[in-house]
Order: sequence, then C-alpha cells, then structure tokens
Amino acid sequence: MAIKVHGPMLSPAVVRVVATLNEKNLDFEFIHVDLQKGDHKKEPFISLNPFGQVPAFEDGDLKLFESRAITQYIAHTYGDKGNQLLPNDPKKLAIMSVWIEVEAQKFDPVGSKLSYEIVIKPMLGMVSDDAIVTENEEKLSKLLDVYESRFKNSKYLGGDSFTLADLHHAPVLHYLIGTKMKSLFNSRPHVSAWVADILARPAWAKSLELTK
Amino acid sequence: MAIKVHGPMLSPAVVRVVATLNEKNLDFEFIHVDLQKGDHKKEPFISLNPFGQVPAFEDGDLKLFESRAITQYIAHTYGDKGNQLLPNDPKKLAIMSVWIEVEAQKFDPVGSKLSYEIVIKPMLGMVSDDAIVTENEEKLSKLLDVYESRFKNSKYLGGDSFTLADLHHAPVLHYLIGTKMKSLFNSRPHVSAWVADILARPAWAKSLELTK
Repeated sequence: MAIKVHGPMLSPAVVRVVATLNEKNLDFEFIHVDLQKGDHKKEPFISLNPFGQVPAFEDGDLKLFESRAITQYIAHTYGDKGNQLLPNDPKKLAIMSVWIEVEAQKFDPVGSKLSYEIVIKPMLGMVSDDAIVTENEEKLSKLLDVYESRFKNSKYLGGDSFTLADLHHAPVLHYLIGTKMKSLFNSRPHVSAWVADILARPAWAKSLELTK
Repeated sequence: MAIKVHGPMLSPAVVRVVATLNEKNLDFEFIHVDLQKGDHKKEPFISLNPFGQVPAFEDGDLKLFESRAITQYIAHTYGDKGNQLLPNDPKKLAIMSVWIEVEAQKFDPVGSKLSYEIVIKPMLGMVSDDAIVTENEEKLSKLLDVYESRFKNSKYLGGDSFTLADLHHAPVLHYLIGTKMKSLFNSRPHVSAWVADILARPAWAKSLELTK
C-alpha cells in the first residue's frame, strides 16, 4: 500500500490526517507509534519527522509531517477522489486558507489546552488545572462569537461547502463536545448546527472506528 | 490601486505580507493602523478582520486576513510576476508546506516571544522577563539544531530555491539577529548562511524601508 500514516489515534493531529484520507476514500496503512515508550523520539520515526512529533506520512517516496501540510497535499493530489475538500475558485480557496489559519493559530491552541486539561489528564489519572481551564474557556467563548457571526453569512467556514477548514476542527471538537464545554457550542445556534453537521459525516464516523 | 495592506509596519505579520508583495514586484497601497489608539478593534478595520488583528488585505473585492493565507494567495495568484516563491512540482510544494507549518507552529511562537521580550518591551520602556527569555532561548536553540541538519541536504527550507517557507521567517529573524540571540544563529554555519542569504534579498531591503 502506498500511503502510510504513523501515529497514535489518540492524537488529534493524527485523526485529522486519517479523516482527510477517509473523505477522499483512499486506502492507507496505519502504523501505531507508542508515545509512552518514546518511539516518536527514536529511529525509525525520527527520520520521518526530525521534530519527533506525530503524525508522519508517506505516499510512495514522499515523506511529510505536520498534519495541515499533509491534509492539503492529500486534498490537492487526490482532487478527483472521494469528496471535494477544496473550492475550485482561487478567491474562495484563499478564503478557505484564512480559516485554515484561524483553526491553526486560534482554535487549536485554546481547544488543545482545554482537551488536555479536561479529557486527557483525567484519562491519565492526573488533576486538571482549573485556572488554565477558566482562562481558555473564556478565550474559546470569544472565538465562538466570531464563528457564530461567520455562520450567519456562510454555511461552512470556507464558504457554501465543507472544506479542509471545517475538517481540521473535527478532532478537537469531538473531544470538547463530550465535556462541559458543550454548552459553549450549544448556546450558539449556528455553531451548534455546524458542529453537528461536521461530526455526522460518514468519513468522520469511519475515522473514529480506528480509535477504538 | 487594487491591492491594499492594512497594519503597522512594526508587526512581523504585516512585514511578511509586504515582503511577499515586493518579491512579486507588485504595487500596493499601505494603510497604517494605529494599534495604540485601538484602531484594529474598531470599524472600519474590524469588518476586514473580525478578530481585530493585523494585517488585513484587499485585492479588489477580495478581503483576507491571516498573514500566511495572504502570502499564499499572492504567490499563487501572481505566479508569473517577480520572483517565483513556490516550487512547480506538487511533491516539492508539499515539502514547502511542511516547512511553512514548522515556521507557523514552532519557530514563530518561540521567536515572537523572544522578540517581544528583548526588542519590543525595551522599545516601550518595559522590563524583559528573564525566565521567559531563557525558556525560549533553549527552545530556539533546539529548533535551530533541526534547521542546521535540514540545510545539510537542502539550501533552503523548502528545497533548492527560496520559497515562502523561508520568507515567512524573515520578519522575526530580522528582529532576533539584532539581539544577543544572534549567537544562536551564528554558531550554526548553515543556519548562519541561510539567514544572511534571505535578509540580503533586494525585496527584503525594500520592505524594511517602509518601517522607517
């Protein structure tokens, strides 16, 4: 099989890549990397990503890392397969890129801190830091106000159709929606409809099966 | 004039966009946004970027924000103007995207904290936080070890030629190279040559003129 994804399915960045492959209906080999054993800091993984972080990705002789670079490669290279994840029009593509940056620079730092504190830490028997939770809950609330406004003019972040800009949010959204943060999403009708929409996609359900 | 850039030239994200326009030899109108007066949190700016952050960008009726989305739009849309900033081959383009993500996710958070502490704070009469400086100096040092290895096989981050992946680093590099952090760059021969190369580009010198 030509395409390989390396990483644990617990990592949102890994699931982001897997969900993109499932949207494009592509076969791939999944290679588990054991973070607790430190396999991401050793060979052979470190030759795939010198920063020692998951995921890593292979497509034949091409080796990539950084989840958002990988998803964009997949969406562009396999444009004719599965579901379209990019707008055709260059101006619409640029607007999608703006929201890809918003996810990476604004949503992910806040959402990842929250999911670490209230999902991952309890899973590992650690205690959540309430101050970090409160600080990031406030940031998420302000961010979702902007998203709510965006959805008054646009069904999805990038425009009228589902794109990578929406997909990139799914792994962290999935974690947060199972916590008390749910009320931040549910209290905003457009955000709530968007979350329900993107987490109901068949490719997303298929991606979650790998986490089990 | 069709292209407009909104923001103060003190902001690395604004200079990143200006440097891209200069590489492509494009004319543009520069509209100063006074952050100290809070103009980025009010109309008309807030209609260009609902998050109230610089830069904002207009090309005719297209309105964008997030510097890295803007530079990619410019490089793709004006591919035939000025200097080529993107590889033609899709696999090389994907590798460039990996290093665009490395800048955004790893270099920028560390570099921006350092330049805020040791360049911007003293400029505003504030005192640097030594603990933050030390912590980020260590992170930058480890990061530059990976860059040094990268440059043993590749003249630029994205491959054999200068691309957006290199350009995106220039504004924060320019700040850091004027501080005691200079030794972190100079002690690594390949990194040092790369810094000298990208800061010697005519489009970069032209961009700095606007900061004066």
